[in-house]
Amino acid sequence: MSRQLNGSVTPEKRLGQNSIVQPLLTDLYQITMAYAYWKSGKIQDHAVFDLFFRKNPFQGEFTIFAGLEECVKFLDKFSYSKSDIDYIRQILPPTVEEEFYKYLGTLDARGVSFYAVKEGSVVFPRIPLLRVEGPLIVVQLLETTLLNLVNYASLIATNASRYRMASNKLKLYEFGLRRAQGPDGALSASKYSYIGGFDGTSNVLAGKLFNIPVKGTHAHAYVTSFNNLSELVIKTLEPKTGGKPVDFVALAIKWRESIVSVFNVMLSEVNDGEFAAFISFAISFPNGYLALVDTYDVKKSGLVNFSAVALALLDLGYEPIGIRLDSGDLAYLSVVARNLFIKISEQFKRPQFANLMIMASNDINEETILSLNEQGHEINAFGIGTHLVTCQKQPALGGVYKMVEINGHARIKLSHDVGKVTIPGRKDVYRLYGENGNALIDLLQKSSEAPPKVGEKVLCRHPFEESKRAFVTPSKVEKLLVLYWQNGKICQPLPNMQEIKERVVDSLRILRADIRRTLNPTPYKVAVSDDLYRYLHDLWLENAPIGELA
Amino acid sequence: MSRQLNGSVTPEKRLGQNSIVQPLLTDLYQITMAYAYWKSGKIQDHAVFDLFFRKNPFQGEFTIFAGLEECVKFLDKFSYSKSDIDYIRQILPPTVEEEFYKYLGTLDARGVSFYAVKEGSVVFPRIPLLRVEGPLIVVQLLETTLLNLVNYASLIATNASRYRMASNKLKLYEFGLRRAQGPDGALSASKYSYIGGFDGTSNVLAGKLFNIPVKGTHAHAYVTSFNNLSELVIKTLEPKTGGKPVDFVALAIKWRESIVSVFNVMLSEVNDGEFAAFISFAISFPNGYLALVDTYDVKKSGLVNFSAVALALLDLGYEPIGIRLDSGDLAYLSVVARNLFIKISEQFKRPQFANLMIMASNDINEETILSLNEQGHEINAFGIGTHLVTCQKQPALGGVYKMVEINGHARIKLSHDVGKVTIPGRKDVYRLYGENGNALIDLLQKSSEAPPKVGEKVLCRHPFEESKRAFVTPSKVEKLLVLYWQNGKICQPLPNMQEIKERVVDSLRILRADIRRTLNPTPYKVAVSDDLYRYLHDLWLENAPIGELA
Repeated sequence: MSRQLNGSVTPEKRLGQNSIVQPLLTDLYQITMAYAYWKSGKIQDHAVFDLFFRKNPFQGEFTIFAGLEECVKFLDKFSYSKSDIDYIRQILPPTVEEEFYKYLGTLDARGVSFYAVKEGSVVFPRIPLLRVEGPLIVVQLLETTLLNLVNYASLIATNASRYRMASNKLKLYEFGLRRAQGPDGALSASKYSYIGGFDGTSNVLAGKLFNIPVKGTHAHAYVTSFNNLSELVIKTLEPKTGGKPVDFVALAIKWRESIVSVFNVMLSEVNDGEFAAFISFAISFPNGYLALVDTYDVKKSGLVNFSAVALALLDLGYEPIGIRLDSGDLAYLSVVARNLFIKISEQFKRPQFANLMIMASNDINEETILSLNEQGHEINAFGIGTHLVTCQKQPALGGVYKMVEINGHARIKLSHDVGKVTIPGRKDVYRLYGENGNALIDLLQKSSEAPPKVGEKVLCRHPFEESKRAFVTPSKVEKLLVLYWQNGKICQPLPNMQEIKERVVDSLRILRADIRRTLNPTPYKVAVSDDLYRYLHDLWLENAPIGELA
Repeated sequence: MSRQLNGSVTPEKRLGQNSIVQPLLTDLYQITMAYAYWKSGKIQDHAVFDLFFRKNPFQGEFTIFAGLEECVKFLDKFSYSKSDIDYIRQILPPTVEEEFYKYLGTLDARGVSFYAVKEGSVVFPRIPLLRVEGPLIVVQLLETTLLNLVNYASLIATNASRYRMASNKLKLYEFGLRRAQGPDGALSASKYSYIGGFDGTSNVLAGKLFNIPVKGTHAHAYVTSFNNLSELVIKTLEPKTGGKPVDFVALAIKWRESIVSVFNVMLSEVNDGEFAAFISFAISFPNGYLALVDTYDVKKSGLVNFSAVALALLDLGYEPIGIRLDSGDLAYLSVVARNLFIKISEQFKRPQFANLMIMASNDINEETILSLNEQGHEINAFGIGTHLVTCQKQPALGGVYKMVEINGHARIKLSHDVGKVTIPGRKDVYRLYGENGNALIDLLQKSSEAPPKVGEKVLCRHPFEESKRAFVTPSKVEKLLVLYWQNGKICQPLPNMQEIKERVVDSLRILRADIRRTLNPTPYKVAVSDDLYRYLHDLWLENAPIGELA
């Protein structure tokens, strides 16, 4: 059963979903619970679950919600195949009744209503990112897969957005494929870091599947594969505007001789294998010449060889792109490189040379970028791998999926840790804005309550601390939970990746700077309505056992 | 083109490989380098690359090598489809010659010789886990995908093996699906943690694909979905040996009344919704009754309700399994539970009750287990999620893939950081064993050298510190690199998962305990032969530029 999407259809959607996203991608206990519910006559039970998290990642005070589209696609194709059921029969005890397997075969998500915050929105602890309503058994069976699809996607989008903020307008490329959690971990990383604010990826398959810009030039191995200039088979290059091929090697050699004095090195110190590698790369990609300059020695060899070849390219009308630094003191080396580029641009009247791109890519994390910013540097672009894709600082978002209502009765999960008490009942979330357009507070209400109104005072209460209350008069009210799936249909256009990427930017813009900042950010407020406060606390008392002092 | 595997064929193999493991799952620079190599006339160049890592993860002194089978499968199907080439044409500059795309279309891994350490072996920094030889362009194009397949697999297998050692003979289950890096990250985690020493997973799809035992019972939501005993539709259960169904609810109620005094609680403190949930779960799974006891209050409610239902099951001839604790002080609660179980077993003459399983599962990491061991606890099994699958302590293994030889000439990658200098040339690795069967040292030699011989003294040198040398007389010599792929064929049986799992156990056994231990482990020695030492240092001097003091 395939359904047409109402929204814009990107190539990614046409390709459908990773085939391993299927109902068996779940914890076994969901299926044992399904049987116990079934056996206990709970087929008609109707439940409401909230998916939310309790703490923003990375010691920050915001999170970017992502993964929604994958969730909707999962609902769309949710059903157990014969092979699935055969396998389940194999792993459940033989006492399980055969009727149950027939019942499993009939299940799909048509009875489910699925509400979500818009993908790419900034979100906060305790607010439901998803509200999933429907037959208890089905909504329970969706739990693990939905969590899997939301947790990592949101984590990496958030991580990427933090790198984006730290690096201002610099270019950011995701280089994490080799260090990601397997092949698909890498693809998710490429996709959601692009959504979170990156400019591209090195992952070619991600480029193909998601239409993300792909970047990359060469590795150290390319440089070490050349020994000296005599290995160069092709020595000529046509000028950009056409015409007779020029002896490019001779031209580069001539340039190298002219510039060694600028670099204050002896020609014998400059590596010839590296020179040959750069020349051959420039002949192959005369319009895309970006060279990795740290295979031997950045100052004594890499920059000299790069510059000689770049000047030769300029002579033929090409625009060299720049260099990549992959080791050493990036702030210092970038400044050294920039100064030399400026010196050359002045000495040889090549104004473009002053603005060559300097890319850096060695084990960079958010702190590295912030520290580079403090030191001062001349880097224009970062390639970021391990720390981005593994989210080293916090490698998992602790999203949870909790039952808040069953058959119209609110449910609460108590805990000795107040932070872990769930907010019961079917709820809506409203984002209240101030006059300057900044978001002031997210307000949770019972769904049965009337929404807050623009210009009308509304009492916002801390969910657990009685005395923390404030009146808010919103200039704008935004209902965060939107219905995406009902009666077996996607009922809201799914935005394409570009639109989600733009939402991230817009959504972060509504936050005050002190909430967004990296160091000691101010927590954003998430409140409950007065009604919901009373409801929550009444239910709490009702469910907490009364002990006896002994 | 599909080839028959020589080795044992498990269901997993028959299913083939995740379809996203394909030649485009690579960094773009591999393809730009391929073009530059092609354009520079390097089609006939022959290269040798080593895949190795520089530092053991998790502050440990060993690593488990995994991911080999996936690498071999990748070689087996390595080729660019028309759609791949169309996409590459789209992202490379228009100056790239059309001939190159034709050439890409002809590429496969038939010219590659692929050597590897056996999957599941314990390995150490600097030794090649893979040695990949063949046409420069092809072996370069394999880099990123091989790294992706080896890095996470080895990391998680190592992590799992550390949990295994920390928990001795206790049962370990992987519960990480909801927190893993996407769907496939989760599957890899299930597979390689099983290989590393876990007993099963909660991930049903991993169970189906890899034939791993799957475990799971119920969540808090199951408990909160019941309010009181009146909701129970089915109240009876047949005795295990058959016969007239018994009023199971009445039986459990009777038991609960008899035991509250053992728990020193009042009946009013014990939650009836939880009781109903446990009864219904026991009726559904009378042979698999394992209850999550911390939804309300472990001591005042969970353990009472669990025990009443477990005693009722025993009356009918069933063997209850035990409890799961998912919050609170696990050491303390497990001891409380065990003592109560023993008390009941004695008071009511139910000897089985003393040995009920106690499972723990709240945010557990290696340190938690070590600390529980110190405190003393009564836990029999752990369910481990986030920390296992994300490898929180070190979320990436820094595997690298370096050219060590081209056209018969050794290559060295220099670095100001001595630890990053690569060991040049085509090499073999021998593991030398002492008389007691322990591994003494791994010795890297040039492939052209004769292997070390049992009973003959061999000089082992530190690769970088001149004075660190030792003679070793091995009692056993093991050649670690085995040929897995040549002439387009898999030429070594690929073991099934059970065999790999056993190799992990055997392989760790050959390590001295002080190398394996968690706290301040002793580094295992990796040495080079005298010949290789000289070769390395000659090449180093040859490539390092000579400066001039100014």
